[in-house]
Amino acid sequence: MPSIPAAIPPSPYRWPADKRAAVILSVDFDGPTPHLWSARAGRADLLGELEQRRFGPRQGIWRILGMLDRLGLRASFYVPGAIAEAHRSAVGSIIAAGHEIGLHGYMHEGLDELDAAATVETIERATAALVGVGATPPFGYRSPSWQMTPHAWGALRNAAVIYDSSLMGDDRPYWLDGMVEIPVQWALDDAIFYRYVPGTTRPPASPEAVTADWAWEIEAAREYGTLCVITIHPWLSGRAAPVMALERMLAGALAADDLWCGTAAELANHHRLGVRDAGGAELRPGQV
Amino acid sequence: MPSIPAAIPPSPYRWPADKRAAVILSVDFDGPTPHLWSARAGRADLLGELEQRRFGPRQGIWRILGMLDRLGLRASFYVPGAIAEAHRSAVGSIIAAGHEIGLHGYMHEGLDELDAAATVETIERATAALVGVGATPPFGYRSPSWQMTPHAWGALRNAAVIYDSSLMGDDRPYWLDGMVEIPVQWALDDAIFYRYVPGTTRPPASPEAVTADWAWEIEAAREYGTLCVITIHPWLSGRAAPVMALERMLAGALAADDLWCGTAAELANHHRLGVRDAGGAELRPGQV
Amino acid sequence: MPSIPAAIPPSPYRWPADKRAAVILSVDFDGPTPHLWSARAGRADLLGELEQRRFGPRQGIWRILGMLDRLGLRASFYVPGAIAEAHRSAVGSIIAAGHEIGLHGYMHEGLDELDAAATVETIERATAALVGVGATPPFGYRSPSWQMTPHAWGALRNAAVIYDSSLMGDDRPYWLDGMVEIPVQWALDDAIFYRYVPGTTRPPASPEAVTADWAWEIEAAREYGTLCVITIHPWLSGRAAPVMALERMLAGALAADDLWCGTAAELANHHRLGVRDAGGAELRPGQV
Amino acid sequence: MPSIPAAIPPSPYRWPADKRAAVILSVDFDGPTPHLWSARAGRADLLGELEQRRFGPRQGIWRILGMLDRLGLRASFYVPGAIAEAHRSAVGSIIAAGHEIGLHGYMHEGLDELDAAATVETIERATAALVGVGATPPFGYRSPSWQMTPHAWGALRNAAVIYDSSLMGDDRPYWLDGMVEIPVQWALDDAIFYRYVPGTTRPPASPEAVTADWAWEIEAAREYGTLCVITIHPWLSGRAAPVMALERMLAGALAADDLWCGTAAELANHHRLGVRDAGGAELRPGQV
Repeated sequence: MPSIPAAIPPSPYRWPADKRAAVILSVDFDGPTPHLWSARAGRADLLGELEQRRFGPRQGIWRILGMLDRLGLRASFYVPGAIAEAHRSAVGSIIAAGHEIGLHGYMHEGLDELDAAATVETIERATAALVGVGATPPFGYRSPSWQMTPHAWGALRNAAVIYDSSLMGDDRPYWLDGMVEIPVQWALDDAIFYRYVPGTTRPPASPEAVTADWAWEIEAAREYGTLCVITIHPWLSGRAAPVMALERMLAGALAADDLWCGTAAELANHHRLGVRDAGGAELRPGQV
Repeated sequence: MPSIPAAIPPSPYRWPADKRAAVILSVDFDGPTPHLWSARAGRADLLGELEQRRFGPRQGIWRILGMLDRLGLRASFYVPGAIAEAHRSAVGSIIAAGHEIGLHGYMHEGLDELDAAATVETIERATAALVGVGATPPFGYRSPSWQMTPHAWGALRNAAVIYDSSLMGDDRPYWLDGMVEIPVQWALDDAIFYRYVPGTTRPPASPEAVTADWAWEIEAAREYGTLCVITIHPWLSGRAAPVMALERMLAGALAADDLWCGTAAELANHHRLGVRDAGGAELRPGQV
Repeated sequence: MPSIPAAIPPSPYRWPADKRAAVILSVDFDGPTPHLWSARAGRADLLGELEQRRFGPRQGIWRILGMLDRLGLRASFYVPGAIAEAHRSAVGSIIAAGHEIGLHGYMHEGLDELDAAATVETIERATAALVGVGATPPFGYRSPSWQMTPHAWGALRNAAVIYDSSLMGDDRPYWLDGMVEIPVQWALDDAIFYRYVPGTTRPPASPEAVTADWAWEIEAAREYGTLCVITIHPWLSGRAAPVMALERMLAGALAADDLWCGTAAELANHHRLGVRDAGGAELRPGQV
Repeated sequence: MPSIPAAIPPSPYRWPADKRAAVILSVDFDGPTPHLWSARAGRADLLGELEQRRFGPRQGIWRILGMLDRLGLRASFYVPGAIAEAHRSAVGSIIAAGHEIGLHGYMHEGLDELDAAATVETIERATAALVGVGATPPFGYRSPSWQMTPHAWGALRNAAVIYDSSLMGDDRPYWLDGMVEIPVQWALDDAIFYRYVPGTTRPPASPEAVTADWAWEIEAAREYGTLCVITIHPWLSGRAAPVMALERMLAGALAADDLWCGTAAELANHHRLGVRDAGGAELRPGQV
């Protein structure tokens, strides 16, 4: 009979600089692209949702860049190609401050709606857009809506992307079919807390409550030696109340000197150098 | 490469009287009109929702007027034409107390369901109703359900309306295609917190919690130099528990003497005088 | 021009014994009848929801009777005919303790699904069932799901019912087309807070939080001179955690000696004696 | 007339070792099986939900086993056959630590979608899988999604299962048509609090808040002499933040020496020995 492992988790993860746990702040700078993609066959004349999401490039991105500057944090920005082309000065400011820029589709296309050819084409078009505005060829990919398909996985690997940050199969980096996964989780995504969807009934959550829960997540990461990938959107967390709550929380939580903070690309490279692929998982679609 | 802006937000907004931030209390006094509009092809015999919303003109409006009087606040009331005609004494009391009266449709018609001609007709009919009960020709417009179309925008401009207060593209006043926008946001709308929709599963939120979050929004507005447009409905926030929570919160939060409080019309006029249209945005429906 | 009323609300309500405000605890003792009604054309073999709701007559009703006994409170119980016939000893205990028994349909039939003849038949069958188990002919009616139709209103009046307690048009008793309305409100209904509906996503609310909000409602009622009709269900509030939270809250909140507490029938009779029908409202279905 | 029972609840339950109340921790170790069952006619290529649920066998199960070891608790694990076969070392560790293993379908099949023959076949296949990986023949059954049918009840009885733990008709063990029911309740199920369903709008609940409510449930169980069956899932409560909150809460709440803690099988056996079936209820599908 197997016995209970002596340590929890089974084998502790060795973080960069021998830190106890890790936090990555990721910014999905997508503006109105998710709305334009999902409403592409619908009514182009409605302005409510569109203008709400334009808050991101108009104000929110600057609030977040200001917060990161004050905190001395480098973050990972995932930027659809269409946003990069439309908001060059914002993207230039992101690059100039030393943050990472990663792939996030061209128009925030849902992977579950793309066949293999369209998937490849979207990745190529998005890469060209990012490079075209001055970014280095992206190391990483964040899928729109955190969906994934086997053909997207293959196309990313073929495109020399070294990591994905869209799945939730662990709370430490892990190998998955030849790429590194920097895992996310729903509880650390601002959108499902702050977004109100007209026609539904759940109001936005309290920024104080949401960021208090994120502080608890960081405390738990220190307890279990795990990774917190926080995901924010400038049109939501860039508003005054959420960004104030987030900055206050981060200023407190990240003061612990046993936390590693950096970009997803840095952690993916750390994982590639330090952890062999031998124990990696397969994709196994449709399987237990 | 562009550098990060030295100040956040890029250029601070100059508020009236050189205040640090601004708060507008807006009151959508629509009674049963939203229900009658959305149920217009349905069953006219059901009384539950109808009677619930009649609480607004029967009791709620007087509670809110009493609160504003005690706080010494002037507010912006948006009143559908049908309500103005049915509740003349309430509307008269609003005018007599010095509050603003703005457009809110005739029967709370959804703009996404009106073609260009019906949009114009609704605006004209609503204007006539408000003027007919003693209001001055309205300066401003609040769209039902915060939706907007390009043809409504044009019709409002043609109707000599100088501002709209229905969109969320910024958290300071901004020019949008020839009109001033006094922006709202979902987190400051009482309806999505307090309304229970039969057949769905989310119960009303706690008035103490909601108003505590609004106090946090006002604190954040002072931190970032932004605008809070709070929106309440007499049939919801006019009930005893929400109005008590709201009055206590406002009495505390508005004691700060660095806040400008007034009507949306006053702020729109301030913006027209002080900020040229040159930097204004276009509507760009269906675009990033 | 009309001036703002000097007092808020316009004319204070005169409560029994000149108290400052009023609280009624109402108990919808309906067990599985709402489920059986709504699933009547569906699958009769599924046991999950059915057994969950049987907690009411099996355990919850006794917990609530015990709580009322310890608090010295008399409450208004609304009991579908089918429940009265199936659970005679529970109904007998309710009567013996001096509580009111009112109508609540025979099988919790939704009024929006009944034509005029079926409405009359249901009221007659429900009345016969209550009288058959020892109740006095009911003074009052609580509609299933708080819906109402003009023909149900007429049928109740013809059945010598003197009050309804299903609508939300005020927060004091009011005349409505010849009957007294003892108004309810969603924020004081346990079901929408505690019930989890399989297939949906909102979990049950915290009993501590719900009852703290109800204490706030009672405090607000004292501030504005209004009425709190709290509505509970034995299969929900009769569970250990909610009933403990409710008893603790009521023991504190009702200690104020300026509150009137009693049954809905008592308050309806008070209203009939003290407030003439002259100012009563009409039903006006489909109207503003 | 019947009088109010002298004691609440009518007859106190006699718990093992004459304790005042009881707590059972149950673990539904189902990994991706609920998703694979419900998506079985859908798209097998999507990886998002699949990988999220694989967190359970990959990390969550070890976190929970570690927590139970530190707390000195034995729990009841309900394991679909497909999971037992795919994760033998995890199941071996559960058995080695002295926990109970019970039935939970083979692929988490919904009972409402199985006819009588498929129900029998699923129970047989699931039993064979558990026994095949080293478990003793299971004493108990936990239905997927807490649904139940009369033919499943009969099939379980025929399969020599002595208890079910899927229904909510009481908060103490009870006889139901020849088997013991160890009742659950929604408020003690982690899934409806922590799971986010893509395409819906409710975000995950706060682990601190959820476990504080569970502590309140345990306090109420001590007040009323009832049973708390807490249900957790390794892919949800095995994450760092929820498991830290749960361990801290249990360490505090279970310190009371008047609580009985053990497995559902132990309590079912206690009930069989101590409480005759005479007072047991019938299934009565479709009846009040």
